[in-house]
Amino acid sequence: MVTPIQFRQRTAEIIDLKSILSTLSWDQETMMPPRGSEIRARQCGLLSSLYHRKLVSPEIGEMLDELEQQPDLDEWYKASVRELRREYEKAVRVPEKLVRELAETTSLAYQHWVDARRMSDFRHFAPWLKKVLDLKREQASYFEGFFSPYEALLDDFEPGMKVEEVAAVFERLRPRLAELLQKVVDSPLYQSVPSLEDHYDLASQEALGREVLTAIGFNWEAGRLDRSPHPFCTGLNPNDVRITTRFYENDFRPSLFGILHEGGHALYEQGLSVEHYGLPACEAISLGIHESQSRLWENLVGRSRPFWRHWFSRLKEVYPSLRRLELDPFLRAVNFVEASPIRVEADEVSYGLHIILRFELEKRMIDDGLEVEALPDLWNQGMQEYLGIRPANDAEGILQDTHWSQGLIGYFPTYLLGNLYAAQIFEKAQSDLGNLDELIARGKFLPLRDWLSEQIFSKGRTRSATALIEEITGSPLDAQHFIDYLHKKFGDLYGI
Amino acid sequence: MVTPIQFRQRTAEIIDLKSILSTLSWDQETMMPPRGSEIRARQCGLLSSLYHRKLVSPEIGEMLDELEQQPDLDEWYKASVRELRREYEKAVRVPEKLVRELAETTSLAYQHWVDARRMSDFRHFAPWLKKVLDLKREQASYFEGFFSPYEALLDDFEPGMKVEEVAAVFERLRPRLAELLQKVVDSPLYQSVPSLEDHYDLASQEALGREVLTAIGFNWEAGRLDRSPHPFCTGLNPNDVRITTRFYENDFRPSLFGILHEGGHALYEQGLSVEHYGLPACEAISLGIHESQSRLWENLVGRSRPFWRHWFSRLKEVYPSLRRLELDPFLRAVNFVEASPIRVEADEVSYGLHIILRFELEKRMIDDGLEVEALPDLWNQGMQEYLGIRPANDAEGILQDTHWSQGLIGYFPTYLLGNLYAAQIFEKAQSDLGNLDELIARGKFLPLRDWLSEQIFSKGRTRSATALIEEITGSPLDAQHFIDYLHKKFGDLYGI
Repeated sequence: MVTPIQFRQRTAEIIDLKSILSTLSWDQETMMPPRGSEIRARQCGLLSSLYHRKLVSPEIGEMLDELEQQPDLDEWYKASVRELRREYEKAVRVPEKLVRELAETTSLAYQHWVDARRMSDFRHFAPWLKKVLDLKREQASYFEGFFSPYEALLDDFEPGMKVEEVAAVFERLRPRLAELLQKVVDSPLYQSVPSLEDHYDLASQEALGREVLTAIGFNWEAGRLDRSPHPFCTGLNPNDVRITTRFYENDFRPSLFGILHEGGHALYEQGLSVEHYGLPACEAISLGIHESQSRLWENLVGRSRPFWRHWFSRLKEVYPSLRRLELDPFLRAVNFVEASPIRVEADEVSYGLHIILRFELEKRMIDDGLEVEALPDLWNQGMQEYLGIRPANDAEGILQDTHWSQGLIGYFPTYLLGNLYAAQIFEKAQSDLGNLDELIARGKFLPLRDWLSEQIFSKGRTRSATALIEEITGSPLDAQHFIDYLHKKFGDLYGI
Repeated sequence: MVTPIQFRQRTAEIIDLKSILSTLSWDQETMMPPRGSEIRARQCGLLSSLYHRKLVSPEIGEMLDELEQQPDLDEWYKASVRELRREYEKAVRVPEKLVRELAETTSLAYQHWVDARRMSDFRHFAPWLKKVLDLKREQASYFEGFFSPYEALLDDFEPGMKVEEVAAVFERLRPRLAELLQKVVDSPLYQSVPSLEDHYDLASQEALGREVLTAIGFNWEAGRLDRSPHPFCTGLNPNDVRITTRFYENDFRPSLFGILHEGGHALYEQGLSVEHYGLPACEAISLGIHESQSRLWENLVGRSRPFWRHWFSRLKEVYPSLRRLELDPFLRAVNFVEASPIRVEADEVSYGLHIILRFELEKRMIDDGLEVEALPDLWNQGMQEYLGIRPANDAEGILQDTHWSQGLIGYFPTYLLGNLYAAQIFEKAQSDLGNLDELIARGKFLPLRDWLSEQIFSKGRTRSATALIEEITGSPLDAQHFIDYLHKKFGDLYGI
């Protein structure tokens, strides 16, 4: 009979291989010299196949069969068996041929996407997107129990989330966002928002970023901050969590809010249980909940009035050119709202509209056979309808995001779910902690970090995201919290 | 029948796993946050065992058996079969129990060595060294065809080198080094060597180091320079070679010559054949030849008069406090000779005496059963006899080096062999290139780098180090080249 300890030894190996792979990826993004890429790709391929072989080994299948019969497992082992079963089934049901085809096709599709975006010509990418979609539909076909193929794909990123629930929530949200966006843009104060563009020395930006990161509770004994072209956070394990950022000389905001964003992800990863590390249950629960943590620190904390009541004077010390600015116009400048074509640069209000449009299109492609040729026009029409703007070309339209080329379909909704979860969770934190705004205004962030740690981080994925949200907030996912939050914040800022 | 391509696919996997391990080690030394060490150790253990399992798999054994019968293999495949056979035999003959015991014992012995050195008390380390020696003797016993157990251990680091040859060469060298040391110290100019200690800004040291590294031909597209407490070079593959250094505020020499030293190693690794990478023959040939490259650039180039004829004015630009210094006293200062107790700080003349003493002692321990208890006294007596000084205590005496605690026995001689090879090779480069001193004095280093690449780097280990030296220089290893080089250089510098 297999013991929990034997089980954990095997799962730790699988998880260690994954962590080694993440280390190689981090190195590739931040440290590796350019010529290293070819051999590194081969090494990652080798490790992936060793990982896969360990995961689908008959021994793991037998262990799962046995442990599923054992009634007396504790919460962590029970959840670990459940989560490993999910991954095991995903790995064994999908034929190796499809896995290889997906890897090869997405690799080529990505190259074609890069070229297509450079040429701003969707037609160059369309046949490759079609191939990717066919393979993803085939992948979805190996799984039962989902409402639709799209839901099976969504499940990879937001386990347990129902496509109808997402659709309903987004449907409700869409007009409210569009309406609020219009109100802000039409407000009298909107025209006088100051530009913060100036010269901001990179070393000071980095030093300030580190100061803020320290303040919110990032543990430097168990993490680091580097630079990379695309900011990211990677949790190699709870004791080694690495984030990156990029700096712009003319604006301190991308690096500062970027650091808060990745810092939010990092607090989650650092807060996972060291004691249970090596068990499949000791991982982040879903992409949506992960994103809730980054958005919570970036927006609900970092772009809030209480935050700047504390940090504004420090910012002026670092950048004396800001010293004459008042807090209110400054807050409007870090919360500038604008209908703009690029998702990653979008503000809190318009961001969701980009996601909703992506979600609707990818769902129609997978579930309803929408042809890829129709995408550029549908995208442009959607932007017109939801945001009132029209992208100038494919590059800043349908081609702006890489996800589909890499086979990441069902991923986009988690970005918006993150915003919704964040608002719902933050509201509860305010009520539990009583004086959260005041704490933040005094530069005290650790009570919030500790509350999140207790409520979320330390639990790993011992329960589902759906269950977790209910457990923490007493109710299921509800977009109203986000809508209320936006109305209150932007109402206050723009006097509407 | 196994084809060369199938063989190469398998060897590439083995080599890739080793490279991944090296990447993790590099990361650990330079980047990893402190808390990451425990999980990282486990990951390295896992990768090592995957590496070992791949190496000793029956499939590899069969491939080797088959390929050894194939008469028409090209030079690279023939050498690869030979080299993989060596590694395969080393891996399969030593029982797994011994491998594990060695890993565990050296890990504990290392800890005891750290403590013993801190307390400066050899007795604390002695029982652990004894255990290590017993295990190393057992390890040696699994191999035949060596003159003695020590030779079997030496073979791990300097394949094919005979212990009697090393002993004879060192025996001849010892009195000559001792004599030259004395002559330099007694010379009239010796007392007036200027101290270069001053304040040298770290950023300038790093910038200058990068400038020099670029000049000698280090390829930044295929490498990087970082900081670490113990400088090292790691060649992850020819396209990704990483070196580290450390900086001292009061002296530019350790970082500059350290960078030249590691840079020499790096040129070797970058110069390995990209085309043949993945074959066992495409690796550096031996530790001694590797060290010859670091010492060549550090000493024969970097501490030479021609080098400073070019770089001295640049150095003075960077550090104006040196502007009044003349070239000759400066050259004596970067070639200061001194009988001092610490090997790693020793100059070119006295360095060899440290090594010869270590070699004699470790050889006697392994081959003649010399008891560890006798070591501190024998070390101190040896230092008195060879260098004319007496270490103040065990910490700066027998305990100064970590190698034995880690089971690295037979490693020390390669340091001195490196110096000897370097002199012999450099002499030949001078004769082949005709005007090498002049090229160096004009800051032209690439002809030398390219000559080394053609003669050494690009050949990998398609032949033995012994054969390579004969092939390049027309004669076997001969200490006379090193003796001549030292006499000429120090004769010139100190007027003796």
